Amino acid sequence: MKKEFKVTPYQVEGNVDYNKLIKEFGVSELDNPTLERIKKHTKELHFLLRRKVFFAHRDLNWLLDEYEKGNKFFLYTGRAPSGNVHIGHIIPWILCKWLQDKFNVEMWFQFPDEEKFLFKQNLTLEETEKYTYENMLDVIALGFNPKKTYFLIDTKHANLMYKEACKIAKKITFSVVKASFGFNDSTNIGSIFYTSMQAVPAILPSVLRKKNIPCLIPMGIDQDPHFRVSRDVIPKLGFYKPSIMHNVFLPPLQGTSGKMSASKEETAIYLVDSPEQVKLKINKYAFSGGQPTIEEHQKKGGNPDIDISYQYLRMLFEPDDNKLKKIHDDYKSGKLLTSELKSILIEKICSFLKEHQRKREQAKKQIDKFIFNESRFHKS
Amino acid sequence: MKKEFKVTPYQVEGNVDYNKLIKEFGVSELDNPTLERIKKHTKELHFLLRRKVFFAHRDLNWLLDEYEKGNKFFLYTGRAPSGNVHIGHIIPWILCKWLQDKFNVEMWFQFPDEEKFLFKQNLTLEETEKYTYENMLDVIALGFNPKKTYFLIDTKHANLMYKEACKIAKKITFSVVKASFGFNDSTNIGSIFYTSMQAVPAILPSVLRKKNIPCLIPMGIDQDPHFRVSRDVIPKLGFYKPSIMHNVFLPPLQGTSGKMSASKEETAIYLVDSPEQVKLKINKYAFSGGQPTIEEHQKKGGNPDIDISYQYLRMLFEPDDNKLKKIHDDYKSGKLLTSELKSILIEKICSFLKEHQRKREQAKKQIDKFIFNESRFHKS
Repeated sequence: MKKEFKVTPYQVEGNVDYNKLIKEFGVSELDNPTLERIKKHTKELHFLLRRKVFFAHRDLNWLLDEYEKGNKFFLYTGRAPSGNVHIGHIIPWILCKWLQDKFNVEMWFQFPDEEKFLFKQNLTLEETEKYTYENMLDVIALGFNPKKTYFLIDTKHANLMYKEACKIAKKITFSVVKASFGFNDSTNIGSIFYTSMQAVPAILPSVLRKKNIPCLIPMGIDQDPHFRVSRDVIPKLGFYKPSIMHNVFLPPLQGTSGKMSASKEETAIYLVDSPEQVKLKINKYAFSGGQPTIEEHQKKGGNPDIDISYQYLRMLFEPDDNKLKKIHDDYKSGKLLTSELKSILIEKICSFLKEHQRKREQAKKQIDKFIFNESRFHKS
Repeated sequence: MKKEFKVTPYQVEGNVDYNKLIKEFGVSELDNPTLERIKKHTKELHFLLRRKVFFAHRDLNWLLDEYEKGNKFFLYTGRAPSGNVHIGHIIPWILCKWLQDKFNVEMWFQFPDEEKFLFKQNLTLEETEKYTYENMLDVIALGFNPKKTYFLIDTKHANLMYKEACKIAKKITFSVVKASFGFNDSTNIGSIFYTSMQAVPAILPSVLRKKNIPCLIPMGIDQDPHFRVSRDVIPKLGFYKPSIMHNVFLPPLQGTSGKMSASKEETAIYLVDSPEQVKLKINKYAFSGGQPTIEEHQKKGGNPDIDISYQYLRMLFEPDDNKLKKIHDDYKSGKLLTSELKSILIEKICSFLKEHQRKREQAKKQIDKFIFNESRFHKS
């Protein structure tokens, strides 16, 4: 039987069935009792949690056990620079920023500037270097605490990372990466090695501080194969298995199949887009759950479940549950037209981007406050 | 038909037929016209060249063409730390030191401290770190010019090296390393990646100086597979293919098959051995080409070609051709007994080691003058 969808760090295709994925990947559903445990510490739940945009996890209850025993965790996520950041990328980062504030914890942010270079034929390291800089601005603009945030750039911090990556790599065979990432004999040896570099930030704070510190990784579910591999290895090196929280993919403008892709411009809204671009893309491309004519729409109503504009509001741009419910109900009843729904989204996105782009400009002066270096690192 | 010998960077077995190896590896014989070209610049030839301990090369004539056009080369060789240095290791280093003096060129010396860790099950990075330090002392003690010598330690200089290694790794598939190094699906992904780190010093001076500089690598023929792979890749990155000079293996004490192995203690003389250890090892283990009894030896004579003591004198410890010839002839005629030949060698080795160990002590204060860092590196 042919599988209807495919999810690896290097390919997301088809209509992803997240319930099937939970079984296939062997992750746990992020259920209400676990969310309630988080809420006990955070008082409220971020809408990304309330709305199950984060839908699965690994060992999150263990992490909370440790936290409740006084054993604080650190956060780790990342961004492989190869182009501009789009609104799908920032879902885990927004949760990270919220978790950093609520739990007052460190954020380790990896920019594996070699990854996409190794995996994409025509991408150069000069390009990934340029985008490392550009992408760092977007991360900073989201409001991370510079006193508790460390950026790791693989090629620049390789003197810290390569040694640890070798320790991990020694315990991973080609068979394992072949099965996990769909590699074959034609895969280049840099791509083969790469997963060990992605594992490093999960242990590096523990290595540098010479103590075992729990790690929580909020990320897209497509990255899970990396950590399925490294979670087997990390305990053999004497460290805790990192805990993980998985988010669903933000769908591309064209519809609910696959994920928003930075390399297909017409599928994505970038954080550097102008209001005109946003307006054009949403009006032109955003898949509608509405009816072909206004009359039919007003009669039969639209389908918010497959409507991209509604989904973007739900997943990113309308934090207020009451307002979202009204939009949902009005659209479903036919009271709210597709063009009106799109206008709501366009306004929300443009307002977010205006503020984001302002902070992004300010971020240019702050980069050095975020990049890891020994002198600004607190050993204890 | 079964092959009688095997030569890879990770295995040397059997009675190596160097003529066959020249054909199999596709290298060139280091012939007299090429040696004469070297002599034109150096006035004399080192005994390692005169005696064809260096027996093969790649593109050495091209390198000399470039040199004669005023395009100076740099030297590159290395040592993967996993134990004490033995007398077999230093053959290429001795030639490097001589070439550095004669041509007044830079020496880039790599200590890939991750290599043996990745390839040997029970070796730790703490051990390779210890031996990196110990091995550096031996290299310094050979008399390299600190103003023109740069040590690269893979894990410590990874911020310089990893990025370049990725550029190389992108152009090497698993198929290629499988065929070149005898890897399979059970090989760990660090070992698979490693060859790209070994390629880096061949281009790093050119990268750092932003100009294309010819590179000459004197090394044991077992390392050739690494450069067969990387010589295909390096020109694609815009750099000259490195030239190579290959030496034969110093045979183990037990005889002329395989190579001296640092991990089999009874096969090797280490640079930290005491005179007592040297005496014991030579007398007990050094394979003799002599006859079973003194009477028979005096009558039939010995065979210097298979006599380890004679071979060590020829390959390392008796630079004077006339003296060596006399030893050869006297042994062959039966005039020189095995015990006498062994005494000559023991004295030579002990005298070398006494001086080496003295310089090795002094080297402890000089290490910082040799390790690469940006501040002592001359960009032009």
